[in-house]
Amino acid sequence: MEKLDRLLERIEPASKDWEAKAWERLHAQIRPRDSLGRLEVIAARLAAIKRSLTPAVGRKIIFTMAGDHGVAAEGVSAYPQEVTAQMVGSFVRGWASINILAVHCGAAVRVVDCGVASDLPPEWPVLRRKLGKGTGNIAVGPAMSREVAIQGLTIGAEIVRDAHMKEGYLLFGTGDMGIGNTTPSTAIIAALSGKSVRELTGRGTGIDDVAFERKVRVIERALAVNRPDPNDPLGVLAGVGGFEIAALGGAVLGAAALRVPIICDGFIATAGALVACRLEPKAAEYLFVSHRSREVGHTAMVDMLGMLPILDLDMRLGEGTGSALAMNIVEAAAKVLIECKTFDEAGVTDTGH
Amino acid sequence: MEKLDRLLERIEPASKDWEAKAWERLHAQIRPRDSLGRLEVIAARLAAIKRSLTPAVGRKIIFTMAGDHGVAAEGVSAYPQEVTAQMVGSFVRGWASINILAVHCGAAVRVVDCGVASDLPPEWPVLRRKLGKGTGNIAVGPAMSREVAIQGLTIGAEIVRDAHMKEGYLLFGTGDMGIGNTTPSTAIIAALSGKSVRELTGRGTGIDDVAFERKVRVIERALAVNRPDPNDPLGVLAGVGGFEIAALGGAVLGAAALRVPIICDGFIATAGALVACRLEPKAAEYLFVSHRSREVGHTAMVDMLGMLPILDLDMRLGEGTGSALAMNIVEAAAKVLIECKTFDEAGVTDTGH
Repeated sequence: MEKLDRLLERIEPASKDWEAKAWERLHAQIRPRDSLGRLEVIAARLAAIKRSLTPAVGRKIIFTMAGDHGVAAEGVSAYPQEVTAQMVGSFVRGWASINILAVHCGAAVRVVDCGVASDLPPEWPVLRRKLGKGTGNIAVGPAMSREVAIQGLTIGAEIVRDAHMKEGYLLFGTGDMGIGNTTPSTAIIAALSGKSVRELTGRGTGIDDVAFERKVRVIERALAVNRPDPNDPLGVLAGVGGFEIAALGGAVLGAAALRVPIICDGFIATAGALVACRLEPKAAEYLFVSHRSREVGHTAMVDMLGMLPILDLDMRLGEGTGSALAMNIVEAAAKVLIECKTFDEAGVTDTGH
Repeated sequence: MEKLDRLLERIEPASKDWEAKAWERLHAQIRPRDSLGRLEVIAARLAAIKRSLTPAVGRKIIFTMAGDHGVAAEGVSAYPQEVTAQMVGSFVRGWASINILAVHCGAAVRVVDCGVASDLPPEWPVLRRKLGKGTGNIAVGPAMSREVAIQGLTIGAEIVRDAHMKEGYLLFGTGDMGIGNTTPSTAIIAALSGKSVRELTGRGTGIDDVAFERKVRVIERALAVNRPDPNDPLGVLAGVGGFEIAALGGAVLGAAALRVPIICDGFIATAGALVACRLEPKAAEYLFVSHRSREVGHTAMVDMLGMLPILDLDMRLGEGTGSALAMNIVEAAAKVLIECKTFDEAGVTDTGH
């Protein structure tokens, strides 16, 4: 708990002063005022985060946090649990969607084993931070203890810290892999928002009507059994969360503590980000939501964060695929702020519009 | 007219067969069915356009078409006409938003003088295709003759053809520069859609209420004077269009005739694309709309094209800035189709969901 408290205490607000300076420069650049819309908003936020008018984000990395879920035993997913480890295998070989999109946007991908049920082959280049071999089944008890939830948050923060301090990464993205993990993510948003499970539950990787009804009942049971208190985000995470969700939240806290920008992926990664921002609301000032997931509960999360996702491409994959695509936009915003000339510099007639 | 007819005759539908083959591969790749959403739709369309499962779009170029407008004399813009040439000067020096975003997405930018009012310095590296020194004032007569409109369409098509055939460019983007050009663009969508000018008119580069009312009246006069026939897209273009708008439409026709994908920018570039697709509806099968412009009439254009813009970032700059950002997404889609492994190839358990 002390460790978590120290992490949260290090998070300061982003700089309103630098944000104002950025708007001054953006408005002096050779284009009509605000004509790059949300790209300029992103640029100003980057300046606020990095206390700089040159918030370069050149070195980029996506952490794909993997974990298994005891609740998979309830038949809430279209895929068997073994797929989590198989997909990790595909990630380390560069075969999956996230690998292709990360290379495309110039980001590294690092896979973190936060709690895959099986032992991953020792030769796979993954960060090994196993918190357990899958969480407890939330339909019958807590996913993990509060202590383990703190450990998960700490792991996420430390991974980001090391990548920034030791390797010089400047922009972070999150992603997830974990069969069954839309179930705990839905339970988290239900617990934090008080909305009904049915309106927040989606089809995950693609379940049919029967499995959907089962999933709704399982999440309702998880809430009834664990009785998560919306004012106790750590309790929500421990009760109905997941190992990778804890690390996804910790990554956001870690980035905020370091004053570096972080982009969260879709439904699962945003669940982690939401827990982080409930633990310390100032963390949201360092966070960008990459895209609006097709998973129905995602909009409730985004609304709770008070954020507008950067992209809306009807995606629902996870892995960090939304983060990769949005990184390109965030980097573009930084470059506009840094590189575009002003009316004065370019000798273009300015009418102040 | 013969030249235009020959161009239109060369446009064939994109291939439904290759689209189906692409979906087969996309659905076999290691992720839940359709989980990359619209990225997969883009990938399948690229396959249909290029008749290939490897529709690489590596070499990319944006054509920023510049032209002036006689109607600027009516006070419809917040900027004086000299800004068109000044901005072209910024483009050729690499100082403007489009330069930064194009470098970011790995695309070349080429500026085309379709009819800037002043003589551009001879040392500026622009394609010189002047159709006149600004169009006629549409509030008192036609923008240009039908012959010149055809010439403008042909110029756009030929520029794309040369860049593809002689330089190997594989993905095209359009952009515009022309003080006052939201006025003819609004007139075009009003003429083609039959909707009221008031509901289609936006603030352009940022005019106040008085100028807005003036702009509405000017467009209404342009329609009253020129009486464009919605069933005669060439007549609409000649009557209330612009030189750069003609070239922007021609670029779409040229790309379609060559079976290469083309992305249109915002309000002005989409006006050109709409005219192109009215001249030959099959051209739309080769077209992507980069983003939803903040300019109100843009949504009417996009609806008429039956398309969903790729991005929605509240932008309204033009220059090709939307095309640049969307190129990154289109290229990402191509790479996913080409590079991502299938369940079989990767040895991941497939449940067909």
